[in-house]
Amino acid sequence: MAQVLSKIKEPQDLQQLSEAELEQICQEVRDVLIQTIATNGGHLAPNLGIVELTLALHLVFRTPDDKIVWDVGHQSYVHKLLTGRQEEFKTLRTYQGLAGFPKRSESPHDCINTGHSSTSISAALGLAFARDLKRKDNAVVAVIGDGALTGGMALEALNHAGNESTDLIVVLNDNEKSIADNVGAISTYLTRMRTDPRYFRNKEEMEDMVKKIPSIGPQVFKILEKVKEGVKHLMVPGVLFEELGYSYLGPIDGHNLTELRNVLNNARQLKGPVLVHVLTKKGCGYGPAEQNPGLFHGVGPFDVKTGKVHKTEGPKTYTQIFSDTMMQLARQDERVLGITAAMPDGTGLAPFARAFPARFYDVGIAEQHAVCMASALALEGLKPVVAIYSSFLQRAYDQIFHDVCLQKAPVVFAIDRAGLVGEDGETHHGVYDISYLRHIPGLTVMSPKDENELQHMLYSAYKLNSPVAIRYPRGQGLGVPLDQVLQELPYGQGEVLQEGQDLLIIAIGTMVQPAVEAAQLLAGKGIEVTVINGRYIKPLDSDLILSKARSISHVLTVEENVLDGGFGSAVQELLQDQQVECKVRRIGIPDSYVQHGALSMLKKDLGLTAENIAAVAEGFIGKQSQPPRRGNLKIAPIMSNVKLAFRGEK
Amino acid sequence: MAQVLSKIKEPQDLQQLSEAELEQICQEVRDVLIQTIATNGGHLAPNLGIVELTLALHLVFRTPDDKIVWDVGHQSYVHKLLTGRQEEFKTLRTYQGLAGFPKRSESPHDCINTGHSSTSISAALGLAFARDLKRKDNAVVAVIGDGALTGGMALEALNHAGNESTDLIVVLNDNEKSIADNVGAISTYLTRMRTDPRYFRNKEEMEDMVKKIPSIGPQVFKILEKVKEGVKHLMVPGVLFEELGYSYLGPIDGHNLTELRNVLNNARQLKGPVLVHVLTKKGCGYGPAEQNPGLFHGVGPFDVKTGKVHKTEGPKTYTQIFSDTMMQLARQDERVLGITAAMPDGTGLAPFARAFPARFYDVGIAEQHAVCMASALALEGLKPVVAIYSSFLQRAYDQIFHDVCLQKAPVVFAIDRAGLVGEDGETHHGVYDISYLRHIPGLTVMSPKDENELQHMLYSAYKLNSPVAIRYPRGQGLGVPLDQVLQELPYGQGEVLQEGQDLLIIAIGTMVQPAVEAAQLLAGKGIEVTVINGRYIKPLDSDLILSKARSISHVLTVEENVLDGGFGSAVQELLQDQQVECKVRRIGIPDSYVQHGALSMLKKDLGLTAENIAAVAEGFIGKQSQPPRRGNLKIAPIMSNVKLAFRGEK
Repeated sequence: MAQVLSKIKEPQDLQQLSEAELEQICQEVRDVLIQTIATNGGHLAPNLGIVELTLALHLVFRTPDDKIVWDVGHQSYVHKLLTGRQEEFKTLRTYQGLAGFPKRSESPHDCINTGHSSTSISAALGLAFARDLKRKDNAVVAVIGDGALTGGMALEALNHAGNESTDLIVVLNDNEKSIADNVGAISTYLTRMRTDPRYFRNKEEMEDMVKKIPSIGPQVFKILEKVKEGVKHLMVPGVLFEELGYSYLGPIDGHNLTELRNVLNNARQLKGPVLVHVLTKKGCGYGPAEQNPGLFHGVGPFDVKTGKVHKTEGPKTYTQIFSDTMMQLARQDERVLGITAAMPDGTGLAPFARAFPARFYDVGIAEQHAVCMASALALEGLKPVVAIYSSFLQRAYDQIFHDVCLQKAPVVFAIDRAGLVGEDGETHHGVYDISYLRHIPGLTVMSPKDENELQHMLYSAYKLNSPVAIRYPRGQGLGVPLDQVLQELPYGQGEVLQEGQDLLIIAIGTMVQPAVEAAQLLAGKGIEVTVINGRYIKPLDSDLILSKARSISHVLTVEENVLDGGFGSAVQELLQDQQVECKVRRIGIPDSYVQHGALSMLKKDLGLTAENIAAVAEGFIGKQSQPPRRGNLKIAPIMSNVKLAFRGEK
Repeated sequence: MAQVLSKIKEPQDLQQLSEAELEQICQEVRDVLIQTIATNGGHLAPNLGIVELTLALHLVFRTPDDKIVWDVGHQSYVHKLLTGRQEEFKTLRTYQGLAGFPKRSESPHDCINTGHSSTSISAALGLAFARDLKRKDNAVVAVIGDGALTGGMALEALNHAGNESTDLIVVLNDNEKSIADNVGAISTYLTRMRTDPRYFRNKEEMEDMVKKIPSIGPQVFKILEKVKEGVKHLMVPGVLFEELGYSYLGPIDGHNLTELRNVLNNARQLKGPVLVHVLTKKGCGYGPAEQNPGLFHGVGPFDVKTGKVHKTEGPKTYTQIFSDTMMQLARQDERVLGITAAMPDGTGLAPFARAFPARFYDVGIAEQHAVCMASALALEGLKPVVAIYSSFLQRAYDQIFHDVCLQKAPVVFAIDRAGLVGEDGETHHGVYDISYLRHIPGLTVMSPKDENELQHMLYSAYKLNSPVAIRYPRGQGLGVPLDQVLQELPYGQGEVLQEGQDLLIIAIGTMVQPAVEAAQLLAGKGIEVTVINGRYIKPLDSDLILSKARSISHVLTVEENVLDGGFGSAVQELLQDQQVECKVRRIGIPDSYVQHGALSMLKKDLGLTAENIAAVAEGFIGKQSQPPRRGNLKIAPIMSNVKLAFRGEK
């Protein structure tokens, strides 16, 4: 099939190709992308949009000596295909297969790992300084989308690099999209450039115009000197970037390989920071993705012919329940606001945005600003709900601390994608939030056992007049019936799901259901278990936990979060502080990064299943003890303190 | 003394004053600032620079209806003096006295708490949206320094607000300084404006020039149309801000009250986002501060007449030891780099910067970028040491996770001001870092018991080829002798300081010395204590801790960090996981924000003293138990789970 592409083992092989072959390879790359992602799911539209640009980059720059840093990295598939990973490409995003993001461990051509947005200019500046210090002369290129340029770190680095003399090329991949529509003044500025015909006018023509201004006398001459200087701004479309210290080249048609090669070659010759402004079309070359780049940004398996995404049958997702509940709250109370950071679809806030546009704020990829702005809105008596994925909310840790909790601003954080996320892998798993949130004074942290509890938790959070975070997972709910009337959950109280004297299992969020199933398995073996749905991570239901733990000698905690400083750790703190003499064992994520792969596979390997909970429990209480499964997930040892998915063995 | 100032009980009282009285009040305010800060210490230069601006703001805007958000907030002293807090002003920054930053709890005129940099535009935008939603018409003003404008969140918000139609005034207080010299392209851009006489030229004069351009024929006319548009850029100095969507007013002399009032009045009339560019002089009106604004940015008590800062006698500070050791390492190894975020003096990197300018990077107030850039430098084989205060490093939590540890980049974090910082209060205490760092896979976290151990830890971190964080406190060391030769500490190993069978105390960092003293007090009562200097928070020295805890039934942990998820929590996790049957009690910071005040006072109140450790220990092991002190620090109860400085009582 891919006759030309298959010849490319290393990017340097591209140099041998004719113009016609280069044209053909673009089509072949697109075919492979479409076929693979139709099966595996993945980031289709961003990669289709960047085929020619990636090719041009590898024609002009010689990795791994030259460095290309892919911002976010979900657009690195074409790069992977050109850098010796064609055979493995069919394993993309699958368990132990190729990652969906650049990985230093995969290839020397991946110089920086990415996954989170807006890091590329910063990393590239570091690589450029390193080159200077080592007196080398390789090129360093950051490839960043216009959406990622709303992120604070990208702007910090843009500001820093613009004032340095080091050679650095920033390729601005301007497709007018981050994941949703872009926001902010820079985005509007770029749009103005795209649409204003003046910017496309030949520069020489403009210079001619200036030359035609008649010179009449010395006095007028002086005036004209000034005027000509002013006119520069007209001739240089990227005045914003020029003012920031960049040589600006563009805008360039990002699907014209010849033009791209020429401009990138020019950029390579220039000294100091250069910004190359490339206009691309998301989804280019595949009709359905061109028409609906949002849907095909990150997409599940789909039918190539029709472009129809395979529907997953079954219960509504947690995201949908959040979405529905937000609509309900917003209809009842006009103070309710929705805030997101470039994720209106992913977080389920899109219907809210359509129904209540004046009460919806998409701030772009700017989590810090989203959280700080929400704090001010909350202090003024409004009811902002900030919906951000768990791993992206890490960016706003300081703002949660400093802007929200310190001044007790009643912001509700709807933390979607908390827990393992599956195929997006280690940068996207939301398995740290319990640990990075529970030590912040004044913050309430909760997690629902199912989608019905989620709606009540959101309602309870909305009623509470203090900062609250609700963490809930990616994917479908359990399919439980949904109560019609929203209820306020009793503050700080967990829930006893069943009683038994042999073992106390305290589970939180997604782990409650497997814990109940484990208890059923154990019941079959004559082991009687009390199961508590923790509900609150902070404050813990200390009365309930203490009263149960005082009569049951063995306590097992289960969470979809790292064990260090996690939920089980909080339970241990409580029990020790209150001098309850019982044994505690914890099940959760070990102290190492979890790779990508299907959720079910990862959970099995990490022991986050009913079967493993039951096995650990049996070993723990010493009845019929059989060695609990350790799982065979490949986890790189982290220093000398590797911890397993369950701990407590001598 | 302050005849006019004393008449001002509320800002509206300013309206009654004559021009002459307004002049006088500026002098009186300066006198009060100088006198108070000479005694209490505080942020002198920033406040002296903003006297006229604050007065003008309160003359034009009517707080609390109108909102003024002070970025960072260390420049809010003048505002405090004008908003009913003159009498308490002498208690500035003292225990239970007036805070050095805006506090909603102090006054309705303080609409937003601040302390960390670069939040004001974001918070102000939230206040403006709230105003719009509530259909009110108050003004909202953010006052931000040019230094704070390098912060990512400020740029995120600047970008967002510039594209919104909501009325918002950003006052850019441009003094060419953050704390040190500014960095970045925007700063250079502002400097260009300050120094280029064209920008100060009368706009009408420029317009006249354009009009004088002769019109000769229709063809030329069309050209001139274009040209005139281009010339706008010449007439509008703030083209960068105009391009971002702001109406730009300035630059204005920030010490000319009349001009300030006029321009602020104009700004108030304008629709949409407005940027008012004010030029001020840090330290204005006090010679020593004008000459050395860096020293007088945040200053300890000094002699008003001479401007000489009272010297503190005694041992070198931890910062000095870090500084000296960095010099030593840098001389030995040219790969060693110093990176800071606008804190070359505060972190002690200034001598390094002078000696090795090519290996020093001050990125401005941009912690995220500093950390990400460092990761790239480290991956290229260099040895970056990132020196940032504990509470400011919170901004880079995600970068430590995503850019450093995930790709195992051997960055060394020198975390100064870890623990309580004293007078700067709740936004500045570095008492969360153990909790926000210890769950990040692959990160080593350590803390020295004294300044001699700090130098060895820095050396050990430098030798280690993986990410490392060293937390150490503000202020003087213990005065211990300094080894001449740097030593590599055995990885992951703690240190037994003394042996005893009644109690095991495991202390970390600053708490090791009080723990040893407590052991001495206990020895006097016949209680024999084993004291371990933990050294490593991650990985814990599990062999040592387990071996001791298996033979001593009572374990007491002591740390200058919050208890939730802290060092003691890690020890508990270890002991429980390994099923060691012993009792654990923890001493540390409770789950609420710690106010400002002298360090000794705060430590006493929080029970972080040898005396309290001994008392808690006695109660714990049940010999001669006397009720341990609870302290009387005013701590607002946080929800229902308030925890005290020590826990474990039934």
